[in-house]
Amino acid sequence: MQLGMIGLGRMGANLVRRLLRGGHQCTVFDRSAKAVDELVKETAVGAASLRELVERLTKPRAVWLMVPVGAVDQTIAELLPYLEHGDIVIDGGNSYYIDDIRRAGELTPRGIRYVDVGTSGGVWGLERGYCMMIGGDAGTVRYLDPIFATLAPGHGDIPHTPGRDEAVGKDGKTSEQGYLHCGPSGAGHFVKMVHNGIEYGVMAAYAEGFAVLKGANAGKKSGVVDAETTPLRDPEHFQYDLDLTEIAEVWRRGSVIASWLLDLSATALIRDPALSTFAGRVSDSGEGRWTIKAAIDEGVPVHVLSSALYERFSSRGEADFADKLLSAMRYEFGGHLEKQA
Amino acid sequence: MQLGMIGLGRMGANLVRRLLRGGHQCTVFDRSAKAVDELVKETAVGAASLRELVERLTKPRAVWLMVPVGAVDQTIAELLPYLEHGDIVIDGGNSYYIDDIRRAGELTPRGIRYVDVGTSGGVWGLERGYCMMIGGDAGTVRYLDPIFATLAPGHGDIPHTPGRDEAVGKDGKTSEQGYLHCGPSGAGHFVKMVHNGIEYGVMAAYAEGFAVLKGANAGKKSGVVDAETTPLRDPEHFQYDLDLTEIAEVWRRGSVIASWLLDLSATALIRDPALSTFAGRVSDSGEGRWTIKAAIDEGVPVHVLSSALYERFSSRGEADFADKLLSAMRYEFGGHLEKQA
Amino acid sequence: MQLGMIGLGRMGANLVRRLLRGGHQCTVFDRSAKAVDELVKETAVGAASLRELVERLTKPRAVWLMVPVGAVDQTIAELLPYLEHGDIVIDGGNSYYIDDIRRAGELTPRGIRYVDVGTSGGVWGLERGYCMMIGGDAGTVRYLDPIFATLAPGHGDIPHTPGRDEAVGKDGKTSEQGYLHCGPSGAGHFVKMVHNGIEYGVMAAYAEGFAVLKGANAGKKSGVVDAETTPLRDPEHFQYDLDLTEIAEVWRRGSVIASWLLDLSATALIRDPALSTFAGRVSDSGEGRWTIKAAIDEGVPVHVLSSALYERFSSRGEADFADKLLSAMRYEFGGHLEKQA
Amino acid sequence: MQLGMIGLGRMGANLVRRLLRGGHQCTVFDRSAKAVDELVKETAVGAASLRELVERLTKPRAVWLMVPVGAVDQTIAELLPYLEHGDIVIDGGNSYYIDDIRRAGELTPRGIRYVDVGTSGGVWGLERGYCMMIGGDAGTVRYLDPIFATLAPGHGDIPHTPGRDEAVGKDGKTSEQGYLHCGPSGAGHFVKMVHNGIEYGVMAAYAEGFAVLKGANAGKKSGVVDAETTPLRDPEHFQYDLDLTEIAEVWRRGSVIASWLLDLSATALIRDPALSTFAGRVSDSGEGRWTIKAAIDEGVPVHVLSSALYERFSSRGEADFADKLLSAMRYEFGGHLEKQA
Repeated sequence: MQLGMIGLGRMGANLVRRLLRGGHQCTVFDRSAKAVDELVKETAVGAASLRELVERLTKPRAVWLMVPVGAVDQTIAELLPYLEHGDIVIDGGNSYYIDDIRRAGELTPRGIRYVDVGTSGGVWGLERGYCMMIGGDAGTVRYLDPIFATLAPGHGDIPHTPGRDEAVGKDGKTSEQGYLHCGPSGAGHFVKMVHNGIEYGVMAAYAEGFAVLKGANAGKKSGVVDAETTPLRDPEHFQYDLDLTEIAEVWRRGSVIASWLLDLSATALIRDPALSTFAGRVSDSGEGRWTIKAAIDEGVPVHVLSSALYERFSSRGEADFADKLLSAMRYEFGGHLEKQA
Repeated sequence: MQLGMIGLGRMGANLVRRLLRGGHQCTVFDRSAKAVDELVKETAVGAASLRELVERLTKPRAVWLMVPVGAVDQTIAELLPYLEHGDIVIDGGNSYYIDDIRRAGELTPRGIRYVDVGTSGGVWGLERGYCMMIGGDAGTVRYLDPIFATLAPGHGDIPHTPGRDEAVGKDGKTSEQGYLHCGPSGAGHFVKMVHNGIEYGVMAAYAEGFAVLKGANAGKKSGVVDAETTPLRDPEHFQYDLDLTEIAEVWRRGSVIASWLLDLSATALIRDPALSTFAGRVSDSGEGRWTIKAAIDEGVPVHVLSSALYERFSSRGEADFADKLLSAMRYEFGGHLEKQA
Repeated sequence: MQLGMIGLGRMGANLVRRLLRGGHQCTVFDRSAKAVDELVKETAVGAASLRELVERLTKPRAVWLMVPVGAVDQTIAELLPYLEHGDIVIDGGNSYYIDDIRRAGELTPRGIRYVDVGTSGGVWGLERGYCMMIGGDAGTVRYLDPIFATLAPGHGDIPHTPGRDEAVGKDGKTSEQGYLHCGPSGAGHFVKMVHNGIEYGVMAAYAEGFAVLKGANAGKKSGVVDAETTPLRDPEHFQYDLDLTEIAEVWRRGSVIASWLLDLSATALIRDPALSTFAGRVSDSGEGRWTIKAAIDEGVPVHVLSSALYERFSSRGEADFADKLLSAMRYEFGGHLEKQA
Repeated sequence: MQLGMIGLGRMGANLVRRLLRGGHQCTVFDRSAKAVDELVKETAVGAASLRELVERLTKPRAVWLMVPVGAVDQTIAELLPYLEHGDIVIDGGNSYYIDDIRRAGELTPRGIRYVDVGTSGGVWGLERGYCMMIGGDAGTVRYLDPIFATLAPGHGDIPHTPGRDEAVGKDGKTSEQGYLHCGPSGAGHFVKMVHNGIEYGVMAAYAEGFAVLKGANAGKKSGVVDAETTPLRDPEHFQYDLDLTEIAEVWRRGSVIASWLLDLSATALIRDPALSTFAGRVSDSGEGRWTIKAAIDEGVPVHVLSSALYERFSSRGEADFADKLLSAMRYEFGGHLEKQA
């Protein structure tokens, strides 16, 4: 079917490519004419403006926004004059689900249908397909099914979940194809938000674990002996120089913690076992933060997900003032001076 | 080759089965004659005592212990009179790596070789193969290679890690087959210990995330309005009845958090979406605890792994006294009475 | 000076009492005529309605609201028709500071001055005085100084902070009297919010510590030996029956962790060393939650404050679903059955 | 009475001074003759060797060790030849309680009595008195009572805990004087260990809270707008420049979180509100670590105490490798490059 795509960054462009390969017709727009030109070469229809993009689509039009979170509202506002009753706006970015609820509330009275799509897959999506979590009106989501079915990874060779057929029947559920209508407006981004919250937690679990492995040679370091340092009690228990690269690899094969994130860790460690190209300043996007806020509103304890988020804050120096106050208190009650680095 | 197996519980019996299928000769012993008989039917050689087991093996003998952690030392002590210089004792259970270091120190002067093997794979190992992390003398581990190669899953259809051949060469590394000599005595169980520590963290990340999804309908509950309860500020943001079973399924397909533990969660949710057969009293084994202790000795922060462990403690009521003290303090400073359940 | 008080619950009534004792004139209103009558007996002026309360005050009127968080906006709305340019509304409850910002924004154009006061002191405030954190226009706060000075504890016998005179001068700072103008609207409740966030963290630190003391006899319990339970490795290290009541008392005297919350713990433990009158279901108010949300917005890591909040959630059973999922995963990969309680 | 003191560092010297002021006779030894001389000027009896120290005491001798943790065993070994049946060795340092249990086990058969004393009070102890937690044989502890009574702060003006007299009677409990016989060998250091674990947690709660206060002006910073940074959603809610020094002061007076550690924070902030003399590299001593290990052995969840410890690890860069792995994973799945500092 036909789809308009606004925003041709890495994600947007690859979504278009996957749709084109799947036989869909894509009309594309980006502030960068070069980005448009590149996809036109790959058989997309180019548009020089939002207006032109809309005009080149047949009604009811489906327009997919793949723009930065902060630009979604403005893009919709600019788009709105050209849209008509029955047209569909899809936000495929990383919007806060609360904005989806608001936007749907604003667009519905005008007859514009709003669909929110949380999209996971990163730079691998073009090849592997995108896992999509979708929110909005059921009829509209069903109408867009050919788009989602093409973008999704499909069943592929990922094993069937045991007992699934008996429970849900052999058809009618798209989750096995890698996309899911999760509920009304915002539900898609809500589920994607939690997905990312979990992602932070899982990543942190591996990161901490590998750090413990790396520290397994702690007993080899000649310990500083002073009043400010706790000596290692049993240095003979920490004499291992473990090969993290090989351990990541072996865990991929038959262990309980095999996962795609572990696969990626194995790749990263193969490339540079010391990870020396990284400084360890870890960014966080909104989803991790929003997950915690949602959990707090729900009254659900999320020790692990919060810790994973805070670790990212700390990695960027955001714990420094708190740490200084700890040192200051230690100085006040014990006369402890900070050790030099 | 030939292997003696002591301990024919679920794990031990399945190890024997996989070895028999792989063409090895297994002599087996268990306190339960019935367990021995069952494997004898499957072509294993039965032994009625530890002595008989040893006598039925040719030198140098390789004896694999698959007994409860608390029984390893005693079993070795009972076995020792029958063993000779050059024989090999393999501990395939969940020993604390510190015990491995001690045992190797005790056995080496007698010429007995000690190998520690951390084994992951659970009830699925017979079919999928076991991921093994091995500690001990390099020559001994190499000698046992046929055993490990058979028990391991092998390369199978798990994708090759990009860049691996260039980095490590096409041969000589067993990690791609699913087993790895990690280092000297204790290294196998050290790596397995951290594996389980990570496992707790990853599991907790999913568990917390699914709990947040489940709470997405918090706005539908008619809130109690009293001084002891915080009202939900924006109930309209928590009106989703999410289908956790379908979400687990869709995440398995192309999402960043796809993993084997997620596969298992999908299976569990298919079977019983409310998980009502579980009370939520989560056991923990030693490895999770030892991981934290090792991290503390190394001075490595492990917020996530610790939280995951403590959540298990709490699930069994171990936070109750602390909680009572919180309520008691609230009563003292504010006259707050506990709300009834 | 003159003050109108709306809301004569425990806190409101005691504020009035302390003001009356300090020589101020209080006009009071509550939905319960009985609550009004009681204070009238103690020389307050009673009012039968909000209108009457306003009419009985001389201009510019100062009206202090001490009503539940959820009732503040409505009370202001009902009050508004009777207020005039220059009048002052004080919210002394536990409002979210974001509501203060909004309210000030709504009232200022009408010439009504809005002051937010975070009040700490609980049931002890009548006797000890109230620690107050104040937000609003500096002139208005200064105008109300006689009220704050009376409600506050004053300098009393709490030691002077060393170096303070040199740094801030001997006068002009009210913080030493126990009240502080923290900044513009919302600043009072922001500081009170963080105060409560810290309170949760400090309480949890004590609660966890006392639980570790209580567990010091863990080695005396005959351990269950099964595959689902980690045996205590060195039971001889956990043979202490510690007297928590006496320990709380001794820590009050010269230790680094002496505090008012410890004093209260000592009182609670004297009354009932086993705390058996409490079930351990710990309520949380909004401030703890809002503190975490503010920290997340600021990008400040708050591991401890979050953990303290989540522990309260867990104490009320809010981790149950996550725990069930953990048990479900363990069943799937290892066939582990939950232990019975 | 008479006491020998070995180790005249800050703590040891001040203990001697407080004892001398209390009318006790102190014989002192230190490797530094200068340290001995200084106390001799203050009427202590000097000793040039351990042997001399022992010889100058009358039997049964009481020798207090105030040496670094790592030097205790050696000092006892050197002392042992000169000690006789009935003599008492007191370890007043920060020993691991497990070492106390071992030492008592070694000394008891020789008739030497061993007492472990956890001492809190830091540089303030000389003036305020020391809070002491004592382990060992009841008779020996009673024999040393004059020493403990002098070192302790005594009742002073710290309020009596309500209900205490009815519960424990007016006499016979030393906890109100600031010292306590907690139980058999190791109990003193066990309680002191947990004291320090709590100390870490309480300190972290304040540190995090003050950091949130400091971040209250986050909305004033011109936000970077890029895909790697989450924009602050409501900058108008974070426009406060809070005066942390004044806030620390006001909380000291009547608030729920008043404490000695808050007093010290107020002092530190008066001295340097930006705490710019500190780098934020926070040391940790053994007690914090041992508390977590004890909690894990007991199966008691200690989210807050652990987080507080790990924050100290992180402050010294110990999370760096884990953070690098997080960045590496983000690069692998999303092509995310780290932001520059």
